[in-house]
Amino acid sequence: MSELSRRSGVPVPTIKFYLREGLLRPGLATASNQAEYDEDHLRRLRLVRALITLGGLSVAAAREVLEAVAEPLDRYETLGVTHYALSAPVSARADGKSARNAEGGERGNGSAAEVERLIERMGWNITERSPLREALAAGLRALHEVGAGYGADELVPYAELAAATARLDLDQLAGIEDRIDIAERALVLTVLMEPVLAALRRMAQENEAALRYAGEDGSNTGE
Amino acid sequence: MSELSRRSGVPVPTIKFYLREGLLRPGLATASNQAEYDEDHLRRLRLVRALITLGGLSVAAAREVLEAVAEPLDRYETLGVTHYALSAPVSARADGKSARNAEGGERGNGSAAEVERLIERMGWNITERSPLREALAAGLRALHEVGAGYGADELVPYAELAAATARLDLDQLAGIEDRIDIAERALVLTVLMEPVLAALRRMAQENEAALRYAGEDGSNTGE
Repeated sequence: MSELSRRSGVPVPTIKFYLREGLLRPGLATASNQAEYDEDHLRRLRLVRALITLGGLSVAAAREVLEAVAEPLDRYETLGVTHYALSAPVSARADGKSARNAEGGERGNGSAAEVERLIERMGWNITERSPLREALAAGLRALHEVGAGYGADELVPYAELAAATARLDLDQLAGIEDRIDIAERALVLTVLMEPVLAALRRMAQENEAALRYAGEDGSNTGE
Repeated sequence: MSELSRRSGVPVPTIKFYLREGLLRPGLATASNQAEYDEDHLRRLRLVRALITLGGLSVAAAREVLEAVAEPLDRYETLGVTHYALSAPVSARADGKSARNAEGGERGNGSAAEVERLIERMGWNITERSPLREALAAGLRALHEVGAGYGADELVPYAELAAATARLDLDQLAGIEDRIDIAERALVLTVLMEPVLAALRRMAQENEAALRYAGEDGSNTGE
């Protein structure tokens, strides 16, 4: 176990916690206080660690992903399970409340209806149980609250660019067959790429603002 | 003041705090314990509130934005000041550490160098003092840590989509002349659109995965 800790960078007490929680299979006992851990343990440990620390998943949600990748799922299902487990934080960030804690009422229904209209307009295949419907609706409600209502029509151009981005993302899964690898890559694409894309968009906004407005009042030449 | 509170939805003690901190100008005294607040106070109060609660800005950072929008800046500068004040959270989210707390070393320099290469490849006009350089470098370091290194070449297609997104964003500032309104809109575009874009991208990933992989092993027909 100390070698597993050394190779993974995960402290021994944390590994013991994961074992107790059933997130990691026990090693093969070789003596009363010795067990052997193989390459598969190491990869699984790295995935558990990443789901919990990078993805911010609860132990229960991480267990769900791990159980899924242990089943004979296809690539689509593996991706979906990882994806759905990761999607709660988006909505929580969007409105500071639980995504499940929908308030109902006209406003809430309005956003949910715009989401359905957008999905239809885009022709997207999104399962009924996808937490992304509520995540998007929560984001639209937050915009609505500050007087910036976006309907399906205004969102279509953004959704088309999101679709192009998703094609780049999925290209990176091409050729990966192993389910643990797919789950790991989905985690990276979903969680770690988001701050990168946000920074790229802000940079592009800065550049676009410079192109359009620098020195417009003659008071600034944009450095 | 109670009317200002009623119209803005901001509690009186909070308004008093903003006054003490100099985030809001005092009203015009009409009696020993009465003051008049005009439409401009209301708009300023809403902006302060939004910067602090939605944008997560410190009082000092909010003051910086407010001082900026009080100066005779052009639209580009107003946008820039609001933008820069808001940009710290991106990098903090990306690596959990302060953006300023660059570790140096080969890895850190590598990411910073890729950022410069990307800016050059895109021909983007990004000021030297922009916090976005470090925000993007921090995001790339986090990816690098999990073995998913992205160099400038891999980022170019993403940056091109970010540029198209930024053009949609800036279209929404067209025709807005008032500096408080520009700052408010920049806040909305920068902070509140991010969870919406993240949800759209995840939805698009779900759809794209369904198109590419549903039923690939014959074990699932994608519902």
